[in-house]
Amino acid sequence: MPVYIVTVGDELLLGDTVNTNAAWLGQRLTDAGLAVRGASTVPDVMGEIVEAIRHAVQRASLVIVTGGLGPTHDDLTRDAVAEVFGKELEFHESWFRVVERAFASRGWSVPEANRSQAMVPSGFEIMRNDFGTAPGLFYTHDEDGREVDVAVLPGVPREMKHLVEDRLLARLGKQEKSVRAVVHIGTAGIGESHLQELLGDLSPFLDHGASLAYLPSLNGMRLRVTGTGSSQEAAGEQAAALVDVIDERAGRYVFSHNGLTLEAAVGQLLLERGMTVALAESCTGGRVADRLTNVPGSSEYVRGGVVAYCNSVKVAALGVQEDSLDDHGSVSEAVAAEMAAGVRERLGADIGLSSTGIMGPGGGTREKPVGTVWVGVSDARGTETRLLTLGAGREDNKKRAATAVLDLLRRRLIGI
Amino acid sequence: MPVYIVTVGDELLLGDTVNTNAAWLGQRLTDAGLAVRGASTVPDVMGEIVEAIRHAVQRASLVIVTGGLGPTHDDLTRDAVAEVFGKELEFHESWFRVVERAFASRGWSVPEANRSQAMVPSGFEIMRNDFGTAPGLFYTHDEDGREVDVAVLPGVPREMKHLVEDRLLARLGKQEKSVRAVVHIGTAGIGESHLQELLGDLSPFLDHGASLAYLPSLNGMRLRVTGTGSSQEAAGEQAAALVDVIDERAGRYVFSHNGLTLEAAVGQLLLERGMTVALAESCTGGRVADRLTNVPGSSEYVRGGVVAYCNSVKVAALGVQEDSLDDHGSVSEAVAAEMAAGVRERLGADIGLSSTGIMGPGGGTREKPVGTVWVGVSDARGTETRLLTLGAGREDNKKRAATAVLDLLRRRLIGI
Repeated sequence: MPVYIVTVGDELLLGDTVNTNAAWLGQRLTDAGLAVRGASTVPDVMGEIVEAIRHAVQRASLVIVTGGLGPTHDDLTRDAVAEVFGKELEFHESWFRVVERAFASRGWSVPEANRSQAMVPSGFEIMRNDFGTAPGLFYTHDEDGREVDVAVLPGVPREMKHLVEDRLLARLGKQEKSVRAVVHIGTAGIGESHLQELLGDLSPFLDHGASLAYLPSLNGMRLRVTGTGSSQEAAGEQAAALVDVIDERAGRYVFSHNGLTLEAAVGQLLLERGMTVALAESCTGGRVADRLTNVPGSSEYVRGGVVAYCNSVKVAALGVQEDSLDDHGSVSEAVAAEMAAGVRERLGADIGLSSTGIMGPGGGTREKPVGTVWVGVSDARGTETRLLTLGAGREDNKKRAATAVLDLLRRRLIGI
Repeated sequence: MPVYIVTVGDELLLGDTVNTNAAWLGQRLTDAGLAVRGASTVPDVMGEIVEAIRHAVQRASLVIVTGGLGPTHDDLTRDAVAEVFGKELEFHESWFRVVERAFASRGWSVPEANRSQAMVPSGFEIMRNDFGTAPGLFYTHDEDGREVDVAVLPGVPREMKHLVEDRLLARLGKQEKSVRAVVHIGTAGIGESHLQELLGDLSPFLDHGASLAYLPSLNGMRLRVTGTGSSQEAAGEQAAALVDVIDERAGRYVFSHNGLTLEAAVGQLLLERGMTVALAESCTGGRVADRLTNVPGSSEYVRGGVVAYCNSVKVAALGVQEDSLDDHGSVSEAVAAEMAAGVRERLGADIGLSSTGIMGPGGGTREKPVGTVWVGVSDARGTETRLLTLGAGREDNKKRAATAVLDLLRRRLIGI
């Protein structure tokens, strides 16, 4: 059942609002076994909305239109829908009474503008909106003998989600033939092309309907494995077979099979082992601590950290030797090692982690160009360091260095 | 010059990735005086990409295609573009040498897959990508006597932005007829409706063609002021008049007029005053340090910080009194004050900042529910604290608390 999404609103094209509705719809409908085949965004211009809906109707068996159902003059979706399907707008008495009651409960009367929200194209059903004054609309259109379901929803995320979850999916329930299983694999420490080389020939799997997508991110690359089949079980088995071969060939880079972030995955490892961690961050400037503490419950295993952005803090708060700084510079293997060991000891954690490097744009030298980073890990067994050679962009470098620190922790915890 | 955007990638339709590229492009192109007229998202399917580009070419005078330029088998944009414009793909020797050098600088050879990134449709120009292995492509197409510019860009946000800023806009410069002036105002410490109330009646400005958009963000709300006119000067004057009245009525909440982030704005204030700062973060977990050190050159004024996620670190590393913790709890005015004063003294900074609170989802009590946060600032004149009452979402709470700490610093620096 191919789905096409039309989102309406100038603010989306002007970039004032990020189109999170489209992303949410994509994820939710995919989970429900529906295939989103295309999405378009149009301005608050009658002709453009009409054309986009027509275009979608020709291609999809479910068209979802969101936005442009508000009470103001630039809300044109109702009129556009009526035009596309050759309908008249009719005043929907009983919905208007719902709106009246909603306003009355706050001691208000209905502003005149809100009357337009009770105008409904003839033949369309109303999907009751519990959180707003614009109802959802539903209609099944006959496109040359082919049935096309059309759902028209408000653009306010909370109302849109409510109408999809509680009205639309229930309504489509009878038709839903979910034969898709999705597994999200998190990987770190390897780039897209190298991972592809390592995975080698996957055509025995891909030729039989499974699919694999690379979703690169500087916080750790994700792989999306999708299996399809005549039943949920068959789809799940197909996905699992591909996941198994990925684990076999590239398992050391895999940190999760369930969509967990890298920081949540290492958090779980720490919890399972009853271990705590402390951070000595120079070039990552608190990013590693921030990512670790984004995970609910992280106070169980994060003792804390020191952001040592100047050398005197490295010495005073972490016990780095003045000699090491003088002899090797603050961006050096020796200093990374002393920072990791120092923070472990001073904050009384089982494991200490460190970063020191040159993030750019300034500060690079011929010997140590921007992107030179040392990271370190220290525990009861000893201290280990790693040199990273990153790029020129400060923000990217911070992301990658923080990911490398978390991956170093992961490897230490699972012993590779 | 109507612009149409085509974004390519299964991950966008499946909702694995939010289409922030489209929003950024919308904003940047609007600022440059171009009108984004439509946007569509298509899956990694050859026929769909081809059709979307054809559709866009018929309607726009600039078509921007992003995504699908990676090295793997599901990257089909190059082939689709070649098909749309009836071109052959040719191996671009000199770009391949750029890629080779990039890999060689990290001691790697070029994976076979990356060769495909040097394949370019004949007649297309290359726009050099300084941050990745996929070049941008540019072509001017003749659509029945009408010129249509086509730009093909990688989907990686940083590379896409770089190519737009540094290559595409420069290339389009000659054609741009900008009669629009945009000023981005950063505000903190006030919500959208209160700010709207405070600004009062702006119709004398808005009725004459200026416009004002509220762009709420938990990192500080932005206002976009746009002036229009027959010349750049006239547009600028119109925008400036509206900016002046905003400053007059709500200046104490305004931290920048040039799109600077709050952290960059306080960074400038610190630089101007030759002052340094140190952070004692509990509930923000390193977020404040991370944001401050995202700013290039921040090592000039950030001495460092302590992430004190457990009480023993608050005592040992910051000198918080055991008594204060026992009597008032770790989330209290007394502890916030001692943290700010302690980190200032121990890290030898001019100003100390602190945060301690309950971010959720767990840890709330009847007296101190989730969202209870104390923040503090300490300098030679003394120590000041503030109580925040935030919401239930951990990530939102971290953002807001970090913003409040930075805003406290800003107010202290300018003396309000």
